[in-house]
Formats: sequence, structure tokens, C-alpha cells
Amino acid sequence: MAITNPQTPKGTRDFLPKEVIRRNYIFNAIRNVFEQFGFFPIETPSFENLETLTGKYGEEGDRLLFKVLNSGDFLAKADREALQNLNSIALTPSIAKKGLRYDLTVPFARFVVQHQNELVFPFKRYQIQQVWRADRPQKGRYQEFYQCDVDVIGSDSLMYEAELIQIYDAVFAKLGIEVKILLNNRKILVGIAEACHIGDKFVQMTIAIDKLDKMSEESVIVEMTEKGIQEKNAKKILELLRTESIEELAEAIKDSETGLKGVEEIKKVYDYLESTELKNALVFDPALARGLNYYTGCIFEVKASQAGLGSLGGGGRYDDLTAVFGKPDTSGVGISFGAERIFDLMLEKSLFPDELITGIQVLFIAFDELTHLYAFKQAGKLRKSSIKTDIYPEYGKMKKQMKFANAIQVPYLAIVGDEEMQTNTISVKNMVSGEQSRMSIDELISLFGK
Amino acid sequence: MAITNPQTPKGTRDFLPKEVIRRNYIFNAIRNVFEQFGFFPIETPSFENLETLTGKYGEEGDRLLFKVLNSGDFLAKADREALQNLNSIALTPSIAKKGLRYDLTVPFARFVVQHQNELVFPFKRYQIQQVWRADRPQKGRYQEFYQCDVDVIGSDSLMYEAELIQIYDAVFAKLGIEVKILLNNRKILVGIAEACHIGDKFVQMTIAIDKLDKMSEESVIVEMTEKGIQEKNAKKILELLRTESIEELAEAIKDSETGLKGVEEIKKVYDYLESTELKNALVFDPALARGLNYYTGCIFEVKASQAGLGSLGGGGRYDDLTAVFGKPDTSGVGISFGAERIFDLMLEKSLFPDELITGIQVLFIAFDELTHLYAFKQAGKLRKSSIKTDIYPEYGKMKKQMKFANAIQVPYLAIVGDEEMQTNTISVKNMVSGEQSRMSIDELISLFGK
Repeated sequence: MAITNPQTPKGTRDFLPKEVIRRNYIFNAIRNVFEQFGFFPIETPSFENLETLTGKYGEEGDRLLFKVLNSGDFLAKADREALQNLNSIALTPSIAKKGLRYDLTVPFARFVVQHQNELVFPFKRYQIQQVWRADRPQKGRYQEFYQCDVDVIGSDSLMYEAELIQIYDAVFAKLGIEVKILLNNRKILVGIAEACHIGDKFVQMTIAIDKLDKMSEESVIVEMTEKGIQEKNAKKILELLRTESIEELAEAIKDSETGLKGVEEIKKVYDYLESTELKNALVFDPALARGLNYYTGCIFEVKASQAGLGSLGGGGRYDDLTAVFGKPDTSGVGISFGAERIFDLMLEKSLFPDELITGIQVLFIAFDELTHLYAFKQAGKLRKSSIKTDIYPEYGKMKKQMKFANAIQVPYLAIVGDEEMQTNTISVKNMVSGEQSRMSIDELISLFGK
Repeated sequence: MAITNPQTPKGTRDFLPKEVIRRNYIFNAIRNVFEQFGFFPIETPSFENLETLTGKYGEEGDRLLFKVLNSGDFLAKADREALQNLNSIALTPSIAKKGLRYDLTVPFARFVVQHQNELVFPFKRYQIQQVWRADRPQKGRYQEFYQCDVDVIGSDSLMYEAELIQIYDAVFAKLGIEVKILLNNRKILVGIAEACHIGDKFVQMTIAIDKLDKMSEESVIVEMTEKGIQEKNAKKILELLRTESIEELAEAIKDSETGLKGVEEIKKVYDYLESTELKNALVFDPALARGLNYYTGCIFEVKASQAGLGSLGGGGRYDDLTAVFGKPDTSGVGISFGAERIFDLMLEKSLFPDELITGIQVLFIAFDELTHLYAFKQAGKLRKSSIKTDIYPEYGKMKKQMKFANAIQVPYLAIVGDEEMQTNTISVKNMVSGEQSRMSIDELISLFGK
């Protein structure tokens, strides 16, 4: 029964204290801003009924859903024909009724419909939970990771678009990451499609221009022509996408009613932000498309100002998120934060505060049983003052104790021998400067401003 | 495709903001105490390889493990014979390689073995994560719930037992729950078994006395006799379990070497605690058994002082937790907090602070487009001062706005009309007292002590 080399499953990771503490630093920064803006947390179960999830993420998504095997004698109710034919896909619904959460959006839509009579609308919520995807594990891509979403549902006010932009700005300012916040509106993209006479190819157009980040303009034009858009129209589209001024673009798409509605919405968002001093750049970018088809109004994306670092978050306005669960016409808008990318970026740029590196603040060491008991008592006083304190469990063995102190990188060592015990003092060594001096417990506590 | 009545799976729950905020209040209280004592967080994946979990929780545990169906064409590698025979249990290992976390102990043991070269021992960690069990759903019993464990591994120092008692004491004092902390030692139970000449029936004895909480003494004696313990010995066992004084018990089990070792360990724990002022009662209770067989030394249990409320936590010393993964002789000790029970108890006794009830602190309402923009600007200043602020998205419609304000139980309403805008002020209504007065934004901020 004994396994001698147990490992986490492929595609998953353990998090050691240093990583958890740093990740919580990011989440706490985000949480604080969310709550200032009146968003509060909800949590949904790790698994949902498969019927809630299936068909919501496209064919690939269905394939990447982790399914939970039914308990007990699951074969008793298994689809016999699928079993006979060894047809895994056909068999699945009869032996697995639940699936692990794939994102936070669909469970949120289900939540809103299920609890609509308990909620007060507009309902503002944030949600920071893990999601699971059966992607092939590879470097930097995991089967389990955190998502961090904030949404308001039940109002079409453009004030919320302005709030979400302020939230992005405040969070990244707090984390010390300089970003560009890109803003566009799906209705403007409709306007561009109509101005270029390809209104019926809107979806194909957005899918193609969504790739402008990774592909050359030429390749995007080729993709559009392959999808049935004439080359001259594809070129005109790309020309319009380069427009920097909203007025200029409004003129170009002035024959599209939807397009002008998009322009108006963008202007209204700017009206709300007029008196706001953003710490990061807000950029109107008509080339921003966001692949997801459920967006219907403003869309956002955040990128680190330094090129090549990819997206740190995105989102937008949707008008029909809950329709699939029988509650139509509920407008909402939301954004998400790419927690994994933010973590990697902050690590790479050394943006985490130094004090997160060390866990405990003071380590006591003693020479014999009596001084060890004395050290335990003194440590209790520090702990009561909210100073993170530890005592090495063995006494004597000075070398071993010092080795431990160095390994955990503790900033202060509190040394207790007979003399300290008799004079009711402690010898405190600053492990950075090497300085050592004897002091009372109150003096030690005051070193930490307590 | 549209489902019109989507629900959470049976045995699982959504958590609305009020519940998440209250649960986080408990977790934060626990976390702060853990960190003062030098324990830091780790996280392990939601699923483990099934070989890591299987056989660790007994036969019932194996049955209650949620298994994750392999991705892709899982039937291709399915056990053909088991398929043919419709044998669900035999088939499972070939179609499900992963299982959801059943507790935090086994994953922690796996973690320690996997990362032994990265960790500094003694290693002190806490872990607050969800676990999943395929129990039949019923009132108060869920398939998904949080566990909250704290352990130190890699030292047999009894100082840690004393620390864990201090942690229990500090956490429950902070939460306002009066408890009794019960303390015993498995070696003392061995001593009692040996003193009653039933050393070979030790496990049966502990299983029986573990039921003293729920069964009469007579029934426990009957159970012991049924397990092959003579009635006179069973009676003597129960007599010894009633001993309140450790000295008296030491005398009664003086012929048992193991028993005396247990007495010595208990005394050492009291030595460390000698100068500690506990806020709750610490009670030596030789009748405390703790069912789990991996405990080898001190054991703990916490009960609310008011009778009938059951256990709020428990734990103990184990000497061989990691042996099953090929790392023997690693002593550790840990306790856990019954977060769900603590939550229910605090709710029942109204122990949550009032300020957790309301989310936002100030709600702005306005009369027209211009005052709405002005309100948005003022709200931004409050938010920057970390005051949880919201603006109703629609202007005018006074009745609708007031209805919303009442529904969310906001303590302060900030009303903005033409006059307020012209004089750069806000009319602030205290929703509890009903008082209303006009003030500057700085005066409003100072209401919150900012």
C-alpha cells in the first residue's frame, strides 16, 4: 500500500507558504478595491450539474470539462448501448452527472437565476475561486487555477463601465504595475462592419481582428478573405481600426445606427470619468474585439505598459447572460483579473513587498530546559502583541539553532540564557546588521512599533 | 438547451455575500492567531492521484471519495472484464485516475514527502481549504465544506502541544465563544488498558469509550463485553476514566511503562503552560479517546461550555503520518477547527459583529444627469478614503431609490440635488436615526473616522 514517491497530479501544483502569502497579497489588494466600490463576495460550489455547464463553452469547452463520476454502482444506470459500443462521449451523461467549475461566469448566471428573489438588483458581486480545465498540462498552463471576476447585473447604466475602469486603475496602481486600459464597444465594431458592407460577416470579422495581437495585418486580411470578406473591404476594416479619435470614427460609421449608439456609449463613459484622475492610461482602441460572443456593449482589456507581456485582464457588457437559464433581458457588465499572469509579472519585476518574504519576525533560542520554558513564556507576550514569533523546539545545540534561524531568514533572534532569565531580559540579535543588545520584553515589542 | 430552473447540485450550497463575509471573519480570526504562532499557509490541489487517497480513510472513506472521470476516450483503456461484468468498483481504477480531496491530512502528508528537500523542519503550516465527500446529502451535512487544520511536523517537542492549546484558547476568546479544552494522551489510555489487563484489546476499548458522549455507561460496557473484554475489566476501565487528578491516575497505572510516559508528557505540557493565563478552561480528561488510530500521544478536543453543542475541533500527536508515503519516524502534532459548527454556533448566539451585516456604508442618490455625474465624482473621493460607497445607477425616481436603500440596509444616504452641487455639499441622511444635515465631502469622510 505504501507509495514511496507521491506526487501532485500532472497539471496541478502545491503552493508553499511564500507563494500563498504572495498570492493573498494580490487578492487582498483586489478585494479591498472591490469592496470600496460596493462589490461583495459570493461563492458557488466547486461542481455544478453537468446540464448547467454543457453547451456553454463550445465544443472544445465541453471536452475540457472535468466530469465527476457518479457515486456507488454507477454502471447500474449506464447507457447500455454506449457501453456496448465503447462510446465514451455517449456514455458520459449516464455515469457522470456533475462537472467541475470551468469558469465563474456560467455559475454566476445560474446563481442569479436561482437566487433572483433573494437578491437586490442591481446586484454587485465579486468572486475569487478556482476553476478546472482538462487542458493538456504544459509549462505555465495548469488544470487548476484561480479566477477573479467582478460583475454588476440588473442595470444597463454606463456608470458601471466607468466604475470598472476606475477599479482596474486603482488595483494596478496599488500593485505597482503600470498598465494601459483599452476600451472599445462591440456596437462600434458592428458599425465598422456595416460601414464596410459586411454586416452579415460580423462574427468572422471579430474573430479575425482578435488575432491582430499575434498575427500580421496581412495574415488577418487573408483570414478575412478566406471567410468570405472581399479584400478591399478587409483593408477598409483595418484602416478604420487604426482610427484614434472617436469623433473621426463616428464620422466614418455615421450611416450605422448601431455604430453611433456605440460611440454614444463610449462618450457617456468618458463623461463619468471626466473628473477622475486615472493613474494609468485609458485608451480608446477600435481594434479591441474580445473573442467572446456574449459581449454586446463596452469591452475592456488591460495590458502591462511594457510590450510583450500579454493581457492582465478583460471584460465587457453583456445583455443576455442569464437568458440560457430562462431569465432574459438582464443586462450586466463585468471584468476579470488574470491572477496567474499578475503573479508571474510581479515576481519577475520584484514588485512584492520585502516583508512578505519572511514569515516569522522573532525566533527564540534557549540553552536548557529552564531557559526554554522562560523563552516560551516571553514568546507568548510577543504573540499577544501580534508579533509573529517562534521558539526553536530544542535547547542547547547552538549550531543547529543558528542553522534553522538562517534557513528561515528570521530578522530577529531572541537569545535566552541563565543571565537573561535572572535579569528578566532578552539578548536580541538583528540578523541583518549582526548587532546584538540586551533588552526587556517591552523594549523588544516596541522594536515592532507595538 | 435552455434550462429554466437551474440549481446547485444536491449536497452543495451557494454562499451569498453576507455568509461569505461572516465566514471570512472566522477564518481571518483563526489565521491571525496561527500566524502569530509562526504557522503559515499552504495549499494543495483540489484533486490528488487516486493512489494517494485510496486506502487511507478505511472502506467507507474509499466509497465516499469523489472520483474524476478520465478525459477523452476513457473507455479505450477501461478494464474490459469489469465492463463485461458491469462491476463498477472493479472498473473505477481504469477510468478514473484522480479523486477530490477528502480531508487535509493525507494531502499534507503527501506534500511533506514530496517537498521534504524544500522545507525547513520543524515545518509549521496551516491549511484552510474545501474537502468533498460523497455522503448522502441531509440537513446540515454537505458534500463540500471547509476544513481548517494547523500542524507542525518534524519535532516531538511537547512545547507544540502547549502552543496548540494556546491557539485554541486565543481563537475562541477572539470569537467570543466560551469553550472547554479537553486534554488526554493515548499512552495513558494504553496504561489504563494494561492496568485492566486488556492491552490486546486497546483499539476495541478506545472505539467503545469514544462513544461515551452519545451512549450510557451501561451500553459502553455492553459494547466492550461484546468485543471480548470481561465485564469486571470494562467496569474498572470506566472507573479509571473518571479520575480527575493526573497524580491519582499515575498511581493507578504505575505498572504500565507506556502509561507513565503518557503521564509525563501531560505534565510537561502543563509545565510549558504554567505561566499562561488561559481564558478558557483546560481540562485533563482521561475519557477523551479520539477515534482516529493514527494518534500516538497527546490528544485534544474543544467543546462549547454550554452542553449539547458538540465538538468544535480536535487533534493530536501522530508519529507516523508520512510513513505510508515512504518517510517513517516523522513526528507531528496538529489540531483542526470545525468551521461549519463554529459558523452555526456564532449565528445562533448572535456572536458576529454588527458591522458585518451591512455591506456598503454610503449610498449616493441624485435627481438628474448632472447631479448624477456630480455624485459619481464625490463617491470617488469616499472610495479613495476606503469607505465602501455606491451610487444608485438611475436618477430621479426617488421612491425606487429609497426602496433600494432600505433593501440593502445602508447606514448613510448621500443626497445630491442642484443646491448641493452648486454649494459643493452633500445632504447626508442617517438611516437609523432619520436625521439629515448638509455637509462638505470632507465632513462626510470624517464621519467614518478617516
